Amino acid sequence: MKKIISQATIDRLPLYFRTLRLVEDEEMQIISSEELGRRLDITPEQIRKDLATFGQFGRKGIGYDVHTLKNNIGNILGLQNKWRLAIVGVGHLGGALANYVNFAPMGFSVVALLDINEKIVGNVINGVEIDDSSRMNEVILKKSVDIGVITVPASEAQGVAEQLIAAGVKGIWNFAPIKLNVPPDIPLVNEDLSVGLSALSYHMSQN
Amino acid sequence: MKKIISQATIDRLPLYFRTLRLVEDEEMQIISSEELGRRLDITPEQIRKDLATFGQFGRKGIGYDVHTLKNNIGNILGLQNKWRLAIVGVGHLGGALANYVNFAPMGFSVVALLDINEKIVGNVINGVEIDDSSRMNEVILKKSVDIGVITVPASEAQGVAEQLIAAGVKGIWNFAPIKLNVPPDIPLVNEDLSVGLSALSYHMSQN
Repeated sequence: MKKIISQATIDRLPLYFRTLRLVEDEEMQIISSEELGRRLDITPEQIRKDLATFGQFGRKGIGYDVHTLKNNIGNILGLQNKWRLAIVGVGHLGGALANYVNFAPMGFSVVALLDINEKIVGNVINGVEIDDSSRMNEVILKKSVDIGVITVPASEAQGVAEQLIAAGVKGIWNFAPIKLNVPPDIPLVNEDLSVGLSALSYHMSQN
Repeated sequence: MKKIISQATIDRLPLYFRTLRLVEDEEMQIISSEELGRRLDITPEQIRKDLATFGQFGRKGIGYDVHTLKNNIGNILGLQNKWRLAIVGVGHLGGALANYVNFAPMGFSVVALLDINEKIVGNVINGVEIDDSSRMNEVILKKSVDIGVITVPASEAQGVAEQLIAAGVKGIWNFAPIKLNVPPDIPLVNEDLSVGLSALSYHMSQN
């Protein structure tokens, strides 16, 4: 099922999913657009409009079924694919991602770790052994990796991206502070932890 | 200088700042809205509109002065405040943040690390010694901490947030997967690394 959904709505879907997951953990079964809005700091009108885009309508005066809504948003986000991740560069950040507990409930699993540092090759994090980066092709294929996560220094990132794509990954999640050139059919998301911090700085400056 | 800027524009400012910083590193002096748009996957029209909001107008057919534009956006984001961060919870993620190289060029510095684990108290990361969490009040005051970064487990996060605020921090950057209750005058940004990954999943599912 493919529908045309605006980019702005797509950007909000992971936030909805995350919040619904927390709400589900709190054992709430129904949530109103007002409560969802309060938790996300988004207006209830915006939420009703976003959800209507993909055919979800809350029951007036009652709300949305939390479990159904969460699963439907998860399906739109493609989380049912149970994507398999390889992390390239197992320094502090790569190691933190290898240990990050929030991926599993979203259906993501880290199945491979790669590094060029011989001192850490062979170490095991969360049940996954660190392989030598020279074996990337073989590891990506053998472990059916879908997503390459780049946590190497900026100077190495473009080369690693090209190796990952040549080895067959279908998407790249880049933490290196550099613009990567990838083919148009390979989705790329750039992550910069200082973006959230800048938003905080903005709000603090308004006080 | 305070101006009313829409939330959507504010959300894009850190992305502009990040990109301009990269462009500056590449020693480009002028950038067009087309080139900025290409790098950010935002339309040039949207960029011109956003920048006009705070009085930045590119020279027609030439573009924006990279250094000036970067500094002006930095000032709107409040980066000239040189915020001082304390990280509470020095596990994998807290340790990765303590080592994260992208904060310094934005003017953020990690000045304090706190943990309850006696085995790591006294260790030094990037020149900062890990203090015992029981000394939080004293450390926050002595090191003039502005921002509390929460990287403890979800079950501990609300308590840590309250301690940080009581100790005098002015903003909270939360990585724990839980909704925190904080006073309305304390800006709070929640970070969830799986949000970016979900966006990647969405785009991969459309292929």
